[in-house]
Amino acid sequence: MTDTLSPETTAVYTDRRGAVHPLPDASAEAQVRADDRAHVFHSWSAQALIDPLPVAAGEGATFWDYQGNAYLDFSSQLVNLNLGHQHPDLVAAIQQQAGRLATIQPSMASDVRGELARRIAEVAPGDLDKVFFTNGGADANEYAVRMARAVTGRRKVLSMYRSYHGGTATAISLTGDPRRWANEPSDGSVAHFLGPYPYRSSFHATTEAEETERALAHLEQVITLEGATTIAAIIIETVVGTNGVLVPPAGYLQGVRALADKYGIVYIADEVMVGFGRIGEWFAVNHFGVTPDLITFAKGVNSGYAPLGGVVISDRIASHFDTVAFMGGLTYSGHPLACAPGVATFEVFERDGILERVRDLGERVVGPRLRAMAERHPSVGEVRGLGLFWAIELVRDRETREPLVPFNASGADAAPMAKVAAACKQAGLWPFIHFNRMHVAPPLVISEDDLVRGLDIIDAALDVADAEIAG
Amino acid sequence: MTDTLSPETTAVYTDRRGAVHPLPDASAEAQVRADDRAHVFHSWSAQALIDPLPVAAGEGATFWDYQGNAYLDFSSQLVNLNLGHQHPDLVAAIQQQAGRLATIQPSMASDVRGELARRIAEVAPGDLDKVFFTNGGADANEYAVRMARAVTGRRKVLSMYRSYHGGTATAISLTGDPRRWANEPSDGSVAHFLGPYPYRSSFHATTEAEETERALAHLEQVITLEGATTIAAIIIETVVGTNGVLVPPAGYLQGVRALADKYGIVYIADEVMVGFGRIGEWFAVNHFGVTPDLITFAKGVNSGYAPLGGVVISDRIASHFDTVAFMGGLTYSGHPLACAPGVATFEVFERDGILERVRDLGERVVGPRLRAMAERHPSVGEVRGLGLFWAIELVRDRETREPLVPFNASGADAAPMAKVAAACKQAGLWPFIHFNRMHVAPPLVISEDDLVRGLDIIDAALDVADAEIAG
Repeated sequence: MTDTLSPETTAVYTDRRGAVHPLPDASAEAQVRADDRAHVFHSWSAQALIDPLPVAAGEGATFWDYQGNAYLDFSSQLVNLNLGHQHPDLVAAIQQQAGRLATIQPSMASDVRGELARRIAEVAPGDLDKVFFTNGGADANEYAVRMARAVTGRRKVLSMYRSYHGGTATAISLTGDPRRWANEPSDGSVAHFLGPYPYRSSFHATTEAEETERALAHLEQVITLEGATTIAAIIIETVVGTNGVLVPPAGYLQGVRALADKYGIVYIADEVMVGFGRIGEWFAVNHFGVTPDLITFAKGVNSGYAPLGGVVISDRIASHFDTVAFMGGLTYSGHPLACAPGVATFEVFERDGILERVRDLGERVVGPRLRAMAERHPSVGEVRGLGLFWAIELVRDRETREPLVPFNASGADAAPMAKVAAACKQAGLWPFIHFNRMHVAPPLVISEDDLVRGLDIIDAALDVADAEIAG
Repeated sequence: MTDTLSPETTAVYTDRRGAVHPLPDASAEAQVRADDRAHVFHSWSAQALIDPLPVAAGEGATFWDYQGNAYLDFSSQLVNLNLGHQHPDLVAAIQQQAGRLATIQPSMASDVRGELARRIAEVAPGDLDKVFFTNGGADANEYAVRMARAVTGRRKVLSMYRSYHGGTATAISLTGDPRRWANEPSDGSVAHFLGPYPYRSSFHATTEAEETERALAHLEQVITLEGATTIAAIIIETVVGTNGVLVPPAGYLQGVRALADKYGIVYIADEVMVGFGRIGEWFAVNHFGVTPDLITFAKGVNSGYAPLGGVVISDRIASHFDTVAFMGGLTYSGHPLACAPGVATFEVFERDGILERVRDLGERVVGPRLRAMAERHPSVGEVRGLGLFWAIELVRDRETREPLVPFNASGADAAPMAKVAAACKQAGLWPFIHFNRMHVAPPLVISEDDLVRGLDIIDAALDVADAEIAG
């Protein structure tokens, strides 16, 4: 058991046989490295150019390597670890479910699957009352699009540039970032539009209100030019995640909802990254007061303790499939072992006031401190965010807003950001870096002390960025 | 803990709080039914026309409903439960991994992820030494195709009619059964060919050798007409699963390998259903003595106790990505909680001689008994299979081989098969039914007594099929 692990005690790790070892253990680390390099093929990587860090243990917002180095996890792994490493309630839920009934197939009824679906329906907006469970966010988006196509009889889908919707074929086609490029030609019935981004307005707007108005006019223009009657769905990350923590300006999502209604288009909210508390709401749409037709989720639903995603479905769409078969499915839909920590997530959120905590820490601690950094560091162009989800956008020049590194930079071009990341790691913080941005996305259970300590590490690392542009 | 459960004792179930209840519990069942009907959206179904069975408990080859009815699981759930319900070693592996480190992101190195990759590489044929882990079989096939496209610079993929490769966009495009239809237009660069099926030869063959020769000639013709230089991959279920337990005749897969080599095409073996012991080999290709370039797997790798799939990659293909990035990935790639029962699967298979057991039971028990049934029942056209994976093909007429129900039958057309299924369930066996076939696919740990008992139930149910055609 890892309950002997905490930042205050000497770190230990538990091996596969259950034996507890103090760190470091050079031979164990060597085995992990050898197996990884010889046999594990990694996501989104040139395999010979990476050096994956062997991780020995984790607790809360901290994880340890085999050298005993502790890292404050400011990226919550892949922005999934909302309740932190080794949360005792989630661990217990998994252990108990494993002991009673690890799995049962999707066509049967399972208590824990039904309970999680009910809990999700209770916190979802409007009449989104049914849940189709998947293995993660990519297939959630695949099946949401499939539902929209079946219900509308139309095929085309609109999605944003500057977005990520997953790695499988439909999901990567929807994606509006460079990860799509190598996978083209992609689904020919996806068209990309530009979303609001006040700091770098595509619409020459100078106020948030103008950005909202012009971004909606642009979307309606794309709808018109693509042909409203050909469009099954519009899919939008409620707060754009990896591509910038882009918080939609007031009125934008209401405008999207209105356009969807006007043209009979299904509105899909992708909340894979931002749902389940990241901005202090069960679903981010609740913050903005809009009700989409479908919400896709994954990650935070069970903190990624087991693969789980899904689609929350409005009554209107669900009822289409009452007598017409939904032609999609998967072996592990509603997997009991993955649903159990999902139910525990609801219990922990409610008992510990997680949503309130996230809103408080965002407003009282993160926001003010990041804004203070923005004033102090000439390399900071903008900070923005909500709850425990923020971006620090780094620039060469605050006036021109030229990014510190170019769009999609790699290798030497990306060196300035790599130096900032290295400074964070050196100081014991694992950062989330994307292009010219650092995101702040720690576990929602991070202590206030650790949160402040992490922000101080970032503050110091920004000196490295300042030095890059001082030249 | 469910170790109080066995077919010999009174069945009990353990609720979400850990309390043990004798069966039946009407109020618990009512809650499961209510949650399921109100909030769970099911795979491949018209939601108002299904009545999912609430399952209370499982052990080994048996599961129980809340009424206390026991079912011998002759479909291993969705042909994933190779080590049966609640195998103590797999349960312990999950519980221990949950207690030490439930998850770590794919870009880091994990001991259990590396160990499972090494174990898989050790039993994979040839130089298939690296593993890209996914959440299931569908995304395994998605990413295998992506690798083939990247390595060859070609886009087209050939797959078989009568096949199933998964539900996401690329995977359903590859699929050669009616589940693809509602999802068309699908990937325009997939072309389907006809595979060997001696009982219903597409090639007017009268011997297995002729079927092999003509099926290979057909495949080469399709390659030629599609354009060999346009084809990235050929994907084949080593033994076709849901679409018929079609065991390839001698020489066929060697011929596919030779054609792939001749034309520079990547050969992908889909072993999602048939890998990890189903026919008594780690990988089914081992039985046939061929080495594909990529093998996809899921299900049996950890008996589906947690979502897990993957691609086993030859050195030639893996090395392409040494300095060129692989442009695919997913949050839960190599999920530790899913890998732990995978490692335990290797330990159990080796300790308990599972592969030898499967071959023995297939040759000594299932094969002879099914062949005896085929002689006895006029409704049986053919029985075929290997290990613990068999099909009983039901016909109206042994001479014409007219199927007992039409291809893709539903509703009233499918009634004869529904009656056979109902007879099985009534007698305590949960069957796998597809079109005019019943498959025999029990957990690999089923006791010989239960196996014989189940086969006797099927034998009796075939009287129902006989009566259907006696009229």
